[in-house]
Amino acid sequence: MNKLGKLYGLGIGPGDPELLTLKAHRILTTVPVIAYPTLESGKVLARAIVSDFIRPEQIEIPMPLPFSVERSSQPHYDIAAENIAEQLNLGRDVAVLCVGDPMLYGTFMYIFNRLCDRFSIEVVPGISSVMASAAMLGVPITYRNDVFSIMPATLEAEILRDRLAFIDAAAIIKLGRHFAKVRDILEELGLLERALYIERATLPNQQIIPITEIDPEAVTYWSLILIPSKTKLQQQFSF
Amino acid sequence: MNKLGKLYGLGIGPGDPELLTLKAHRILTTVPVIAYPTLESGKVLARAIVSDFIRPEQIEIPMPLPFSVERSSQPHYDIAAENIAEQLNLGRDVAVLCVGDPMLYGTFMYIFNRLCDRFSIEVVPGISSVMASAAMLGVPITYRNDVFSIMPATLEAEILRDRLAFIDAAAIIKLGRHFAKVRDILEELGLLERALYIERATLPNQQIIPITEIDPEAVTYWSLILIPSKTKLQQQFSF
Repeated sequence: MNKLGKLYGLGIGPGDPELLTLKAHRILTTVPVIAYPTLESGKVLARAIVSDFIRPEQIEIPMPLPFSVERSSQPHYDIAAENIAEQLNLGRDVAVLCVGDPMLYGTFMYIFNRLCDRFSIEVVPGISSVMASAAMLGVPITYRNDVFSIMPATLEAEILRDRLAFIDAAAIIKLGRHFAKVRDILEELGLLERALYIERATLPNQQIIPITEIDPEAVTYWSLILIPSKTKLQQQFSF
Repeated sequence: MNKLGKLYGLGIGPGDPELLTLKAHRILTTVPVIAYPTLESGKVLARAIVSDFIRPEQIEIPMPLPFSVERSSQPHYDIAAENIAEQLNLGRDVAVLCVGDPMLYGTFMYIFNRLCDRFSIEVVPGISSVMASAAMLGVPITYRNDVFSIMPATLEAEILRDRLAFIDAAAIIKLGRHFAKVRDILEELGLLERALYIERATLPNQQIIPITEIDPEAVTYWSLILIPSKTKLQQQFSF
């Protein structure tokens, strides 16, 4: 009987291929099989980020996912997990590419939950778009006693308002068609002046746009609003 | 007149040297000057992480900081910033090493705030100990509609209790001597069963200990409690 392959959840960061870790790069360039989510619209960000590192002899498993929230992704994850399991059962290591970090709102978690009882899994953390956005915007996020809240724009307006009402610092991710709702809530809460908008952070087509000048119809899923801490030099201690 | 040097805020990740990004590695190994915080106790985690990458001809600027919260760090940052500025004025690029990510509770932010008006600064995001801990613990943090809250254990008990009362998922960082306080609050809120403890994530002496078996007197500053989302396979959509 074959030795089973090992499954890697590989965080590949927000977009700039140089933001892969040394470890993710080593695993990506040595595993025999790679898998990555693709959208039915044909968009394949994860593979595009690392395309220069992929070798022709590597087996590729695309994982098609519906982008629409009207249809469940779960049957698609079932199929993807079985395709991956087939390779693992043949004794081949498989790396699943994850934009950002695998465990933070990552598609990998759905593969992880399906296969963690059957195979050995190693997760390699990746640079989250949240930290990458703060670096690109050039703003410290949180000081010593600040609480940092990361939340998806997909939340209902009432819940978003509740969660944003008492923040020290926050990131609102996955804006897309939810931008206008978020902007209105920030305005209502007096947070709009502190809010910074960035899309496709660290990619060649990255955009930083003043939040009052954004066309809500043109906002991509790959965008976020960062509300950095109010604290600055008046802060007394760093530890 | 010399061209001014460029200042880099270099996220070097949580501890495993392989969790540096390709970019941080490139900059670290090519800049003429590196700077890093040191504690008066002599502990120098940042430099230890990357010690194999440092070349003998690189100029090193240690930045001594008091670990005690009883004394302000600000005069120490003033001195460190001027030592760095001196090298930048000589036209030398300087990389400041930051454990984890530079903009998330980072010591670099205090250098950034002092020098951002005078010099060109580039921030390179790093793997946060929060994401690294989830990877090491093997638990997804947040699913689709979850809010993720990162908070320091140094907060007052009442504030901590308020912030933890309605979380979806949370990380409580910098535990140290605040562990017992945090544990009691988690117990009170019924969160202790979901809470996972890890210290020195990704370092050779990493420890994962059941939270009920921890000696509060022995908890290090380099530790955190992760409370992952309750959501699991019942979650319907990933986007």
